Amino acid sequence: MEERTRLLGESLKGLLEEGKMSASLALLDGLQPADAAEVLETLPYDDRLRIFKVWDVEESADALPEMSEGGQVEVMQGLARSLATRIISEMPPDDAVDLLADLPDKTSDGILASMSPFKAGQLRRLMAHGEDTAGGLMTPDAMRLSQEMRVGQVLERLREAPESVEMIYYVYFQDEASRLTGVSSLRELIVADLNRPVKEIMHGQLMTVAPEEDQERVAALIDRYDLLAIPVVDGEDRLLGIVTVDDVMDVLEEEAKEDIYGLAGTFEIEEQKERHPFIGVLLGRLPWVLIALTIELLVAGGILRAFSGRIRDNIALVFFIPVILTIGATVSLQSATRMTVEITTDPGKRRRFRRSIAGEALIGLGIGVLSGVVISLFAWSMKGDARLGWVVGLALVIATMFSALVGSLLPLLLKMSGRDPAMASEPFLTTLMDVLGLAVYFLIGIALL
Amino acid sequence: MEERTRLLGESLKGLLEEGKMSASLALLDGLQPADAAEVLETLPYDDRLRIFKVWDVEESADALPEMSEGGQVEVMQGLARSLATRIISEMPPDDAVDLLADLPDKTSDGILASMSPFKAGQLRRLMAHGEDTAGGLMTPDAMRLSQEMRVGQVLERLREAPESVEMIYYVYFQDEASRLTGVSSLRELIVADLNRPVKEIMHGQLMTVAPEEDQERVAALIDRYDLLAIPVVDGEDRLLGIVTVDDVMDVLEEEAKEDIYGLAGTFEIEEQKERHPFIGVLLGRLPWVLIALTIELLVAGGILRAFSGRIRDNIALVFFIPVILTIGATVSLQSATRMTVEITTDPGKRRRFRRSIAGEALIGLGIGVLSGVVISLFAWSMKGDARLGWVVGLALVIATMFSALVGSLLPLLLKMSGRDPAMASEPFLTTLMDVLGLAVYFLIGIALL
Repeated sequence: MEERTRLLGESLKGLLEEGKMSASLALLDGLQPADAAEVLETLPYDDRLRIFKVWDVEESADALPEMSEGGQVEVMQGLARSLATRIISEMPPDDAVDLLADLPDKTSDGILASMSPFKAGQLRRLMAHGEDTAGGLMTPDAMRLSQEMRVGQVLERLREAPESVEMIYYVYFQDEASRLTGVSSLRELIVADLNRPVKEIMHGQLMTVAPEEDQERVAALIDRYDLLAIPVVDGEDRLLGIVTVDDVMDVLEEEAKEDIYGLAGTFEIEEQKERHPFIGVLLGRLPWVLIALTIELLVAGGILRAFSGRIRDNIALVFFIPVILTIGATVSLQSATRMTVEITTDPGKRRRFRRSIAGEALIGLGIGVLSGVVISLFAWSMKGDARLGWVVGLALVIATMFSALVGSLLPLLLKMSGRDPAMASEPFLTTLMDVLGLAVYFLIGIALL
Repeated sequence: MEERTRLLGESLKGLLEEGKMSASLALLDGLQPADAAEVLETLPYDDRLRIFKVWDVEESADALPEMSEGGQVEVMQGLARSLATRIISEMPPDDAVDLLADLPDKTSDGILASMSPFKAGQLRRLMAHGEDTAGGLMTPDAMRLSQEMRVGQVLERLREAPESVEMIYYVYFQDEASRLTGVSSLRELIVADLNRPVKEIMHGQLMTVAPEEDQERVAALIDRYDLLAIPVVDGEDRLLGIVTVDDVMDVLEEEAKEDIYGLAGTFEIEEQKERHPFIGVLLGRLPWVLIALTIELLVAGGILRAFSGRIRDNIALVFFIPVILTIGATVSLQSATRMTVEITTDPGKRRRFRRSIAGEALIGLGIGVLSGVVISLFAWSMKGDARLGWVVGLALVIATMFSALVGSLLPLLLKMSGRDPAMASEPFLTTLMDVLGLAVYFLIGIALL
């Protein structure tokens, strides 16, 4: 993929240098939108802008949504308002809304003002929905027809469906009050007798979501029931739009990325990142680091200070600090990760979670006992002192079991208090386990040495 | 969802206790397969088996693939071979193959032997492909027609398509030598003139994959080009089958889960897990823990031992060990996570990666300087000794920058050597950074104290 994009980008650059604009456009026209977008992003900004200024509006509207958010905004801000407006009007409404939301308010207001009132109204209504909801994902362009039609009439209407209708493989039917009453797949329609009333073949019981439904749940429904699209309805059962399977695939990736970043202890500050990548990423990572720093200095440092006399007398205790901290951190993160994945992929199965936590504690105990035996034999042989072996081994077993318990409980508690379970992240857990691990280690040390 | 499933499960149990089998089956028949599967899994094993023994074979074949792998195997092993064979014959081939692969060899061989030779041959051919490849995901049941037909003839054939054809919205065309030559969407077909030869409207340049293509790449292609299905072809361009978008959604989830688990340092040993959950999970997590344990004991412990004289004289050095280790571990995991996500979502962009690594090093430096200032002021004020402040602060800056560099380089090196970038996991990185951090800390300590 990369090689091909690079080669195409170089050809395009060569053509532009020789002033062959129409050949450049022909090259782009032959590509899939996602490929055209990738090739365009290899070009310097000025060249890219030159192309969008003369490129076919429809091709521009197809390729632009496939570019990075920052790239889209750059292009939009470099074009005359009239052209920018034409391109955005041509884009699928869900993509248009995403782009408008990324533009500075002044620019997007200007674009909406110079649009046809119908289109502007449609986009404004869509923009009212939260970005991460069914309403924010949906496109209003779905096939919606009267439930009083016959199959032949429906097929006739499908033949005339404007290209803007993304998904014609599901047809939605409504009554006179515009309430959604059923759905048929195109497959069912072409198999049916042309004279049959659609009312007889449509499915009356359909899966719908409210516009404020979280995008993660929308994705889960489409996945669970193998749908190509799901209708979004308002309180009066009127069809507002549909969310299609391709939009939802992007959601799955986005949510997985969020979980991964969350567990590694980085917040994603998208807006900051677009404007100033370095500051954005730094600000996204710093909070956890600073929290960890403070707790380590005050609490973990404090524990070590409190035991400094004991440490001076038994300097061998220091050698095992890293291993106790690291095993504790690892086990807690493993448990937290498993619980976070379970909670986010299977929310609601409370009963199973209780069993999972017990399972994690057992696994923590298993890992603790196995590594405790290794470490205590090592400590014993090192100093020829069985007591040191006991202290280190016992501390490791207890710390490990604690780690598994805390790691598995924390995401669940976060979830139950309405927060993101992935907040139980590496820096947070590591810090917590450092403090607990040190306390356990030295308390056992006092008791046994 | 959970509430509804629980209630349905209880109703079903009640009906079974009263011996009302036909009412039980009617309840299940009214559900979507995924819901029926979930409800069935709430039942005791014996009740579940009683249902499958009398349930409609088609309904069984729809619901079974939606159950957990372990649950499917249990049911299959409880049924008479003739019934098991009938259910598997009725299942979509891609699901049938997955289930057969999970069964003990003797059972699956027996089932295949009692199947129709045609069906058994089809399944055996599918089973030859690797589970995580396009061949392992595909279903052979696609619409494939001669490119010499006219649109009207094609539509006529679609009307007669057997239900087993999962995706009739894409029709594939082939020449006399059975080579795949083009594709049309049903949308394009119903819009076209019925008398037009399909050769004139079909797309000749189509995206295909080889059967051994990795499932992650298949998912990426479907996602990138917003496809509903992608054809799998052999070396002679003959259509072997298609991978549909719903299969690929499961792949995305699976791969995301793998990455998350990988970064947290747990291998997934699926087979072991099915047979013995506790041992499977334990064995999956232990390797990294034992590697960490060994390195910590030998190297980190060794470093501390080497410096034990210095530590005894400056016991305050011990207080800052946890913070240096934890910040180093956190920063390295943050960098490794970002790189792993970049590499797996956008493989191939070498040039961008170099910039990312430089960016990570800068961010590491930024975090290091900010927290270094905090920690050195703290150390200074604690002991009234500016030198301790310098040692701790400097060590933190250097360790943090190192961590960011190592964390971002490691996934890339793993990828370049053909391994999974997510092997750069938390226990591995934490251990590595413990060793590096301690070495830096005490070397600076020797130089400055």
